[in-house]
Amino acid sequence: MQMGTNLPKVGTYNRAVVLEAIQVSDGISRVQIAERAGLTAQTVSVIVRKLLEEGLVIEDGSLPSQGGKPRTILRVDPSAGYAVGIHFDPGAISYVLADLAGEPVAELHADVRPGLVPEEVIRLMAETARRMLRQAGVPDAKVLGIGLACPGPLDADGVMNYPPRLSGWDHVPIKRLLEEHTGFPVTFDNDASAAAIGERWAGLARSTPSFAYLYLGTGIGGGLFLENQIYRGRSLNAGEFGHITVVPDGPACYCGNRGCVEAVCCPSAIEATVRARLSEGAGSTLSGGPADHTAICAAAAAGDPLAREVIDEVAARLADAAVSIVNMLDIDLLVLGGPATRDVAGIYHDVIAEAVATRPLARRLHRVQVEISPLASDAAAIGAASLVFHATYAPRLGALTS
Amino acid sequence: MQMGTNLPKVGTYNRAVVLEAIQVSDGISRVQIAERAGLTAQTVSVIVRKLLEEGLVIEDGSLPSQGGKPRTILRVDPSAGYAVGIHFDPGAISYVLADLAGEPVAELHADVRPGLVPEEVIRLMAETARRMLRQAGVPDAKVLGIGLACPGPLDADGVMNYPPRLSGWDHVPIKRLLEEHTGFPVTFDNDASAAAIGERWAGLARSTPSFAYLYLGTGIGGGLFLENQIYRGRSLNAGEFGHITVVPDGPACYCGNRGCVEAVCCPSAIEATVRARLSEGAGSTLSGGPADHTAICAAAAAGDPLAREVIDEVAARLADAAVSIVNMLDIDLLVLGGPATRDVAGIYHDVIAEAVATRPLARRLHRVQVEISPLASDAAAIGAASLVFHATYAPRLGALTS
Repeated sequence: MQMGTNLPKVGTYNRAVVLEAIQVSDGISRVQIAERAGLTAQTVSVIVRKLLEEGLVIEDGSLPSQGGKPRTILRVDPSAGYAVGIHFDPGAISYVLADLAGEPVAELHADVRPGLVPEEVIRLMAETARRMLRQAGVPDAKVLGIGLACPGPLDADGVMNYPPRLSGWDHVPIKRLLEEHTGFPVTFDNDASAAAIGERWAGLARSTPSFAYLYLGTGIGGGLFLENQIYRGRSLNAGEFGHITVVPDGPACYCGNRGCVEAVCCPSAIEATVRARLSEGAGSTLSGGPADHTAICAAAAAGDPLAREVIDEVAARLADAAVSIVNMLDIDLLVLGGPATRDVAGIYHDVIAEAVATRPLARRLHRVQVEISPLASDAAAIGAASLVFHATYAPRLGALTS
Repeated sequence: MQMGTNLPKVGTYNRAVVLEAIQVSDGISRVQIAERAGLTAQTVSVIVRKLLEEGLVIEDGSLPSQGGKPRTILRVDPSAGYAVGIHFDPGAISYVLADLAGEPVAELHADVRPGLVPEEVIRLMAETARRMLRQAGVPDAKVLGIGLACPGPLDADGVMNYPPRLSGWDHVPIKRLLEEHTGFPVTFDNDASAAAIGERWAGLARSTPSFAYLYLGTGIGGGLFLENQIYRGRSLNAGEFGHITVVPDGPACYCGNRGCVEAVCCPSAIEATVRARLSEGAGSTLSGGPADHTAICAAAAAGDPLAREVIDEVAARLADAAVSIVNMLDIDLLVLGGPATRDVAGIYHDVIAEAVATRPLARRLHRVQVEISPLASDAAAIGAASLVFHATYAPRLGALTS
């Protein structure tokens, strides 16, 4: 049942609306905020005064106006707050220290040392985060929190649930442990949702009402913003685009399903396909080499026929999934990103964009954009930092009715 | 960008929240409404007084309470308002006159006479709707409007856009014409979205936060409620579950895509498959008969091996799509309905329910229910009437920020 709302909730919500209007703009006046947000000049004025007092927003020059006095330009102060984003992937951990505008101040990558138990890995994460803050000279008072992007599924308390490709991590309360070891609040999500939130806060979906993020990493996932709101689903596991069935009765997926996008398009599946064709005698520059995902993508980009054939087949299945996403969700934008797009983002983009322009049912009513994330391979770590900013500042309709 | 809100919008919204709380309950007190909707007793009291004055709600006996005075039970007055729901299908038109509780007062089915131009068909619809109201003795003042469920896609002004299977109907402004001929406001949607709204207003999803409706008619479509709100998408064409690709490079679909659910699971595809196998010499009770969709479904239910084999294959592809829907949207409930489920709803239900229980990624965190619509083959017509009630009375978060 839908819940009611009241004045204090409206106040909190409108404050977030004003802050978002300032964050997504490249400088905006009070009058412009009032117009775009549908609020009265007085409401905007009161909220902006408070944001200036708190130091979240700064006045930065002025715009000429017709007849009246010049309008003061408002911007978010990037140095008003910081977050450390941690992307925990089965193979490696990426860290980004980001300012409130979502710009990276420092970055760091570390392999996961084999043989460590979860608690040791989490303690290392906490030490690294603390060290980055110290080296950048960010005082604790300016740290809004730690953002953590993990392989899903996670439950609502931040406990890992049967994470694929991470044996020994089932039922690890990673949020609580990371809070204990850092002393900061931790906001968590799966890597793909985090990447979507990063795109919203600091990337190319800042003011797009509805978009899907197709995330290609060790696995394949996704994130969804619908009508300006993150959509997480009942158990926080919406947007699992990697588990759309694209080959009926196809290869088994670790998830228990068959023929999933992930089972035919993830790096290990691509490697298996290439190796099988090499062993059948296919000619390729990959013969005799490692034929791992990195080498295959580089070879495809360089025109190797076998690598290109396999990447084209993967692109076709990703395009099938993309058309299904568009037919289901009627979005404005599909963003492609994640580390497994390196060298092949252009190929994937062109095949998917062509499919999305020609195959969805409502294509004549509404054109869907397909774009490669400008945040590229760090998308999940920048997204993890953005989780903190988004949780703290984004205007959530849910907060009006909770 | 997210819009702000203000007091008048909050008032309208909270009124709808209270009315919905009364509508979904089987009798509820003011105190219970306040608890469930998170509103103060005073806010609820003021809103209920207004609803009683307007005659939308009635007091109906009282509940005992511990210590205090007995609590008055509130119900929606079914006779406070009426709507005519019209389901316009390429083959037939169904009409339902429904009261405010979503209960049908009168029903009527008519074939579409061949050779009529769109304007003549629309005039016949209007005359039929007016006749039903007259025969039921419903005065114009109690008519909230006409609800129209059409084959999609429709644009935002209610103009039909390249409707499949309806030649001559492209760019017909069906909403405007039906308003002119009836004199009542018309609320429209595609048939599958209307069925979903009917399930929300009067069926088994009254208080389910997030559900998908898989609608099997002449074509295959769907409707979505996410977090208690209808989700329509950017061009009002979300939920096109019939155009999820389930067979890569599969049979061409009229939509321009290949291997869509609809291209392999809709009644005409089922007929084509059965006829092909009969001509290859498959043994069946269908040999020599009409072998149309109705006969095939009846034969499958009666145990004919060929009919059952084909329906099982269709069920498997519907199950693939259902698992993709659940993995994408992490919903609470999937409802199956529409006229093409007749005789085979049980088969489809069992195969889909088994898949949804065992294959989605988050199945261990959250169980998704699969149910057959109790509104059955009239789902779209009851849904069409519910479109009017929903548009008039449902608490829409969008109204808080429009």
